[in-house]
Amino acid sequence: MLSNSHKWFTEEHKDAGSAWSLVIEEHLAHAKSDFQTIDIYRSRDWGNLMVIDGFVMLTTRDNFLYHEMLTHPALFSHPAPKRVLIIGGGDCGTLKEVLAHAEVEHCTQVEIDEEVTRLAERFFPELCERNDDPRAELKFDDGLAHIQNLPEGSLDLIIVDSTDPIGPAEGLFGPAFVADCHRALADGGILVQQSESPLLHAELIAGVRDNMSQAGFSDIRTLGFPQPCYPSGWWSATMACKGGQFELPAPARFAASGLKTRYYNPEVHRGALATQIP
Amino acid sequence: MLSNSHKWFTEEHKDAGSAWSLVIEEHLAHAKSDFQTIDIYRSRDWGNLMVIDGFVMLTTRDNFLYHEMLTHPALFSHPAPKRVLIIGGGDCGTLKEVLAHAEVEHCTQVEIDEEVTRLAERFFPELCERNDDPRAELKFDDGLAHIQNLPEGSLDLIIVDSTDPIGPAEGLFGPAFVADCHRALADGGILVQQSESPLLHAELIAGVRDNMSQAGFSDIRTLGFPQPCYPSGWWSATMACKGGQFELPAPARFAASGLKTRYYNPEVHRGALATQIP
Repeated sequence: MLSNSHKWFTEEHKDAGSAWSLVIEEHLAHAKSDFQTIDIYRSRDWGNLMVIDGFVMLTTRDNFLYHEMLTHPALFSHPAPKRVLIIGGGDCGTLKEVLAHAEVEHCTQVEIDEEVTRLAERFFPELCERNDDPRAELKFDDGLAHIQNLPEGSLDLIIVDSTDPIGPAEGLFGPAFVADCHRALADGGILVQQSESPLLHAELIAGVRDNMSQAGFSDIRTLGFPQPCYPSGWWSATMACKGGQFELPAPARFAASGLKTRYYNPEVHRGALATQIP
Repeated sequence: MLSNSHKWFTEEHKDAGSAWSLVIEEHLAHAKSDFQTIDIYRSRDWGNLMVIDGFVMLTTRDNFLYHEMLTHPALFSHPAPKRVLIIGGGDCGTLKEVLAHAEVEHCTQVEIDEEVTRLAERFFPELCERNDDPRAELKFDDGLAHIQNLPEGSLDLIIVDSTDPIGPAEGLFGPAFVADCHRALADGGILVQQSESPLLHAELIAGVRDNMSQAGFSDIRTLGFPQPCYPSGWWSATMACKGGQFELPAPARFAASGLKTRYYNPEVHRGALATQIP
């Protein structure tokens, strides 16, 4: 049992038979949007914590891992990622990393729930630093509908930064959405999607990969990385390219980018490309 | 709070302000040795769980990550690892991985607490599969004293597979022990030590690296890897060599070894060598 000497926030990972808890100092905000319930807590040791429908979304302390690994491997795998779309990503941490790449000319973020972004602006301002970048466009809309209305071949990169495949995000894990992404990408375009835990969700990862394969993507890679606040602490992103094969990252390109990262680097990227699902 | 519909084992990570819990079905064993208290539980989803003095040591489900990453990078970094010493490692999972390398001629394991190994034989038999290998020697003794009595330059590889740096393992994180390891290693020898979480224990990792540097090791690398059952789910091993520099792993050597791994491979090894402490 958890000691009574602290206030705790706990997420139970029901299928996994595990739970993760944080010592909480204050319940900072509670919002009920049209889509979900959002809570913000101040933790004692992990900065602020965002929780949606009882599931941990991010903490100040460890979100850099997820945001760096959802973005940089895909961006550095594309020769010229100019037109980027983020589906979900309401906390804006993914947008921030995307816009750190000078080649990006335009990045649209389509988050279904505006309340997530409003709360991120208040409680995770460091993730929203680039929301006013002239290359950024924040839309609050349904990602499934948005992608259907895009012209064919109009994007270089699509990043699916979603919640778990239940509730509003369920459709983002379906084959129809992935086929729509394939259509919206130009030749050589890349789709990358958060794909849960290599240890706990091998079946889901297989499904994500199957969808990509059926949609016609030519190479598919699942990249593992640590993510303490998510079930098992080991997470993944699966990326797929429309034509061609993923190449190993070029250290010179990373060096020339001037990017400051805390986890990502080209060697880590290489290692992640070799992730086995156990 | 944790729901009452299950029985839980919980470890609170006091300094980190976090906690990790598993759904437990049965308390299989409880032992009080001369050194510590050991409990074994059957979890619902993670196989068996060993707990020492309230700290999670390993589960059936995820120990492969730690055991593979504590051993294979070091073994594949040495041109001919024949004489190996394990300090700690009472669950025998490290020994099993070491003996998977055909070049190893002798591996001594010096665990202070025989009870740990006896319980591992009962509840983690898959980790003890190679305990009867003619190359294995199991001693139950103090690792600090053992290393002092070894002839200078008599080992190729020392693996420190210890509990946290409190209680019996405290001395294993001190400079005197690391200097003794340096003395006991032959030229080109490697010391590798579990070194806690890159996210939570940056100061401890710096101390481990300082000890190695002061002892005269010529190259020092901290390798990160996922380890769900330990605090933050992101863990590390720090390895140091006596003379020379660590080279990148050779894929052909791994292929020729015939090793079957679930996490380790030469690309993952390369990526881990590039771990940044954030």
